[in-house]
Amino acid sequence: MNFTIQNVLIATDDDYVTVDVQVIDGTIAKVAPHLEVVGTVINGENKLLLPGFVNAHTHSSEMWQRGAIPPLPLELWLAELYDFAPLDTEKVYLSALGTAVETLLSGGTSVVDHLVLIPGQELETIATAVRAYQEIGIRAFVAPLIQDESLTAGMPSGEIEQAHEPYFRSTTATLELIEEAVRQFHRPDEGMNILVAPTGIQLCSDALFEGCSELSDRYNLCRHSHLLETKAQEKLAQEKYGCTAVEHLKRIGYLDHRTSLAHCVHLTDNDIAILAQTKSTVVHNPLSNLRLGSGIAPILKYRQAGVNVTFGCDGASSNDSQDLLEAIKIGSILHNVTDLDYQHWITSRQSVEMASLGGAKGLNVADTLGSISVGKKADLVLYDLTSLSLLPRTDPIGLLVLGRPTNVVNSAWVNGKQIVADGQVTTINVNELRQELFNHSQWHANRKSQTVAQIEAHYRAVMGL
Amino acid sequence: MNFTIQNVLIATDDDYVTVDVQVIDGTIAKVAPHLEVVGTVINGENKLLLPGFVNAHTHSSEMWQRGAIPPLPLELWLAELYDFAPLDTEKVYLSALGTAVETLLSGGTSVVDHLVLIPGQELETIATAVRAYQEIGIRAFVAPLIQDESLTAGMPSGEIEQAHEPYFRSTTATLELIEEAVRQFHRPDEGMNILVAPTGIQLCSDALFEGCSELSDRYNLCRHSHLLETKAQEKLAQEKYGCTAVEHLKRIGYLDHRTSLAHCVHLTDNDIAILAQTKSTVVHNPLSNLRLGSGIAPILKYRQAGVNVTFGCDGASSNDSQDLLEAIKIGSILHNVTDLDYQHWITSRQSVEMASLGGAKGLNVADTLGSISVGKKADLVLYDLTSLSLLPRTDPIGLLVLGRPTNVVNSAWVNGKQIVADGQVTTINVNELRQELFNHSQWHANRKSQTVAQIEAHYRAVMGL
Repeated sequence: MNFTIQNVLIATDDDYVTVDVQVIDGTIAKVAPHLEVVGTVINGENKLLLPGFVNAHTHSSEMWQRGAIPPLPLELWLAELYDFAPLDTEKVYLSALGTAVETLLSGGTSVVDHLVLIPGQELETIATAVRAYQEIGIRAFVAPLIQDESLTAGMPSGEIEQAHEPYFRSTTATLELIEEAVRQFHRPDEGMNILVAPTGIQLCSDALFEGCSELSDRYNLCRHSHLLETKAQEKLAQEKYGCTAVEHLKRIGYLDHRTSLAHCVHLTDNDIAILAQTKSTVVHNPLSNLRLGSGIAPILKYRQAGVNVTFGCDGASSNDSQDLLEAIKIGSILHNVTDLDYQHWITSRQSVEMASLGGAKGLNVADTLGSISVGKKADLVLYDLTSLSLLPRTDPIGLLVLGRPTNVVNSAWVNGKQIVADGQVTTINVNELRQELFNHSQWHANRKSQTVAQIEAHYRAVMGL
Repeated sequence: MNFTIQNVLIATDDDYVTVDVQVIDGTIAKVAPHLEVVGTVINGENKLLLPGFVNAHTHSSEMWQRGAIPPLPLELWLAELYDFAPLDTEKVYLSALGTAVETLLSGGTSVVDHLVLIPGQELETIATAVRAYQEIGIRAFVAPLIQDESLTAGMPSGEIEQAHEPYFRSTTATLELIEEAVRQFHRPDEGMNILVAPTGIQLCSDALFEGCSELSDRYNLCRHSHLLETKAQEKLAQEKYGCTAVEHLKRIGYLDHRTSLAHCVHLTDNDIAILAQTKSTVVHNPLSNLRLGSGIAPILKYRQAGVNVTFGCDGASSNDSQDLLEAIKIGSILHNVTDLDYQHWITSRQSVEMASLGGAKGLNVADTLGSISVGKKADLVLYDLTSLSLLPRTDPIGLLVLGRPTNVVNSAWVNGKQIVADGQVTTINVNELRQELFNHSQWHANRKSQTVAQIEAHYRAVMGL
């Protein structure tokens, strides 16, 4: 699997140079002009090489409902999602592949799948996603989505104390399930990682968070969670803890350098300081936050406070795509309207670093991934700069981040293994995948969710609408 | 040029039906299931037919600088743009073609080109853009960008009264130029329209606006302009007129049902009422407004006030793309964070109507364009619903608007003439265009603008930065 990319553009601190890149045994061995050829020759002419990006938060199975859910805030959107989500392992498999293909063809070589589990088939669900990601060859961080409280507990109660059904599975059983998944599937050296990933403070007890921290410490697992995505969650945290969710998570020890937190829209300045101090990572999901009306995460403040930030697409029914370049673009330019001083705005080169090295930091692998550096693993993406969407020639990274690149990923490697060549995924048959996605679905309009009808009045009352 | 699209999905009020669509002499003749075949048969199976969208505000020649300009607010970005814009007619031609191709392949069949004119070659510039649009066959609304004040006049002076160089061409000469362009090129029946289009209150005298209104009345031309894109322009209007820009434009008679106004970010409630009352159209350029940090236009307020709103990509160095579907998506979901009440949020079907019928209204052609209606002109786009980016099958319009569709435009017709087939533009050679764009440009990083260096201190002082 050795290869040499010849005459390829790479970014230096503030310019570009044309070099050869030699990859031996999955590792970047040399980066310099005019290297001797080792292994296969890859023509890098008129192409840009970047480290692979991380799609640092998604829910692959939501692909089955993309385009389907009307404009609703998270709490009602979730009800709509669960009303129409009869998953089976075949669907889990297909949507994991679809998520991986779209991630790869938009510059991602790693995916964090906050994986929705089929009740009663939890380990099978995890096994299925693991199989899909192994087949396609993307580096995978499978984060089984767990909770131990019922959906209705996730909405602030307002004035009225509400009772909630107990969750169908105990906290202990859930933690055992995750430990079993770690034993069976956690193989970091093979590109397959299991994360502990309670869905968030809105549906999880302290015992679940603490059990996850314990597993994380014992097996050196990364920690993932949603955090303060909506105003409703901000209210709920105050009801539940009498303090902010970040203060509480710090108190119970969930935040550390292995912790990545999706959304982080409604944080106080003190919360931000806590994230910086604990070296937690914010995963910015700008499109989902707009689509669900959650708000604009204070990303420029995070950066100024020294908090590591990276990007995610979020699940494909709250976006409704898995195009990482789109998330990076919008997640960068969106914040220009939150601060008049353009000296704080994110440059395109900073966006690329956030998406690559920032992603690696959030997954505790920055020593081996996230940049084109000798000795790091070859998770690389080669962009074709002769695509119409990247022409005329100006600043390649500016074009890639600020444009709307289509059909630009020429090649991608994960751990030195080529899985995209000539713009096509080589490890699976994408046409067959399309046919399967087509066969397992049907066009429709005008679905009506029973649950939304039931809970909408309460939601409007609590949110003052 | 007669044809029949068979078995194609079209949208009804709140559902979809499969029909045949018969087009005779450029006009939609019949829409019903199982029609007799007239002319060429087009297979509409697994495809969605929509009216063509309008890219209702762009500057085609900015394509030469896309990706190149760092994060800057409009006033400094403009200085950077003009420092590096040595245009010639060959470049004007190529970027008009490039703009048209990207518009067509993202669902647009009409383009409003607020065309930057080469000084001393104004009519040649217009002739060149007209030729490019005629060759490719897109419906074109060429709006020569005119002003009669110098660039420095466009920034608020703050405390200090400033003198500005006079503009190099007189108001009278500019109006004569536009009238000559109308005589030579304005052929609405052939899909080629000239608009009067002063750049905006920041660089135009009342005499120029009034002269344009007079030409608009005499030749029944549509009127176009930028309006209140930035906070700096809001300040400038108060300095210049002692009232808002909208109040002033109303007073001098520029606003009517043929007037479309790009941006409209900083308007008061009274301004919004004036737009509704004068039946003016707002062209929403969400990506440009984010990229330049201009702000979020109050689009939900416009809709509630009954103001017609449609979408534009804006020039490709403030976006930096001409993907209309991207502008429609972001221009729809962006506003969910401006109003907690999701009942005000824009649905995907409303987005489609804004982009098609809304665009036609803004160009005073809603009687003949903007919907799939018998008797209207056949400006139509056929989307391939088997593209991976539109799978699995759910709500086709939801997928198209909320997803990130790539390679989905199978066919497009303008006035019944097919100009995209099998996903390829048929009227020009796009590979040759790519080669020309490549040959006329060079990769670079780190440009330094002299003008930005000169005016930045003043800008920061006036804006309180």
